[in-house]
Amino acid sequence: MPNPTAAMLVIGDEILSGRTRDSNMHHLANELTRVGIDLREVRVVSDTAADIIDAIRALSVRHDHVFTSGGIGPTHDDITADCVAQAFNVGIDVRDDARALLAAHYAKTGAELNAARLRMARIPDGATLIDNPVSVAPGFKIGNVHVMAGVPSVFTAMVASVLPTLTGGAPLLSQTWRINRGEGDIAGPLAQIATDYPDLSIGSYPFQKDGIYGANIVMRGTDTARLDAAMAVLQGLFPA
Amino acid sequence: MPNPTAAMLVIGDEILSGRTRDSNMHHLANELTRVGIDLREVRVVSDTAADIIDAIRALSVRHDHVFTSGGIGPTHDDITADCVAQAFNVGIDVRDDARALLAAHYAKTGAELNAARLRMARIPDGATLIDNPVSVAPGFKIGNVHVMAGVPSVFTAMVASVLPTLTGGAPLLSQTWRINRGEGDIAGPLAQIATDYPDLSIGSYPFQKDGIYGANIVMRGTDTARLDAAMAVLQGLFPA
Repeated sequence: MPNPTAAMLVIGDEILSGRTRDSNMHHLANELTRVGIDLREVRVVSDTAADIIDAIRALSVRHDHVFTSGGIGPTHDDITADCVAQAFNVGIDVRDDARALLAAHYAKTGAELNAARLRMARIPDGATLIDNPVSVAPGFKIGNVHVMAGVPSVFTAMVASVLPTLTGGAPLLSQTWRINRGEGDIAGPLAQIATDYPDLSIGSYPFQKDGIYGANIVMRGTDTARLDAAMAVLQGLFPA
Repeated sequence: MPNPTAAMLVIGDEILSGRTRDSNMHHLANELTRVGIDLREVRVVSDTAADIIDAIRALSVRHDHVFTSGGIGPTHDDITADCVAQAFNVGIDVRDDARALLAAHYAKTGAELNAARLRMARIPDGATLIDNPVSVAPGFKIGNVHVMAGVPSVFTAMVASVLPTLTGGAPLLSQTWRINRGEGDIAGPLAQIATDYPDLSIGSYPFQKDGIYGANIVMRGTDTARLDAAMAVLQGLFPA
């Protein structure tokens, strides 16, 4: 059975303007690979309602799981929850269980649960909450879309809350062989191996370091014996 | 006149598997902001022909400029050039000027211009070449799509070759004010400023450091006087 597929949607002007360098994509990619869910596509869009809604709809139809990051805080530019509700054609309002989480938190810290903070308790109808052990304001899941915060420490914690609830496939195994030759010398034999082992995904990632051209050849698959066999062919052709 | 818009397409399994952390997106975002071109959308897709072709078509219709990174080397998984040709419904073959660049380069280095390396001279019909001062194999431009390498040093050099040929808009100016208060305390007044200054883009980027919650408020626009005025209101409400 093929692995489940996933897409990620990164929401935020700050990434597209270059002000902030996204790190959530790399984290999620690694976590999904670890549990056998294939991340097939990532989109980054600005804080624009139409773009967010279009992307949610397109990705949720095409993939088993969608993960979003960003836009669920208390400020005017945090519009993700409302956009997700629109994408699923459901209502959205402050929900009692989410409000209770925030009320308990701010009672402890002494901050006021004002109108802005209450926006973080707006949850689309029918969604289930995602735990936020870092700063309490919850994420949520609706349909196959997991809506999470953009702050990396919170995103990471929410991913850790979510992943155990998902059924992954066979974990993708990977082996790497470093070859200190130009990719052009490797490409011919490598194409033959790729043809002979169609069940493996074989990538060539060139590097240039201290004047040396080379490539890391990465083979990925779910069957150890097949990986070992293909790697033995490669190593025979390009010994260390 | 509004600024030109752009999209980026990052091509490569290695980003989606988490093996490699992409840095080209952040570089391009900064460069485009500097010259007044609005990066509106980024997509990351795997080395799969249908996904690459679909993305090229969707993005080139919606934006003034598209920039791609990855998949133009000599190995079997480098399929970007062929996909771009398909997306534009044109032919593709080894082209004399591109072949001459490679031949001169490999004559110097002593490496063989074999079939694999010749693949890097495959250029879609009607494209113009993009200079590669790092490793010679050229990128190309067809329609509004700039096709560039994924290796960061080469990508950066190609961006530097391309940007002076594009007409940007008014450079986006930006001012930042750091407030050591929770976003929930800032959100109400900030929403009022955003309403009063609809010509500015105002973002709130929360942080949590050493137990302190705060936010950097970033205002962006093309008119210095308007930026100064809005910033003065914010600083009056939240003094240093």
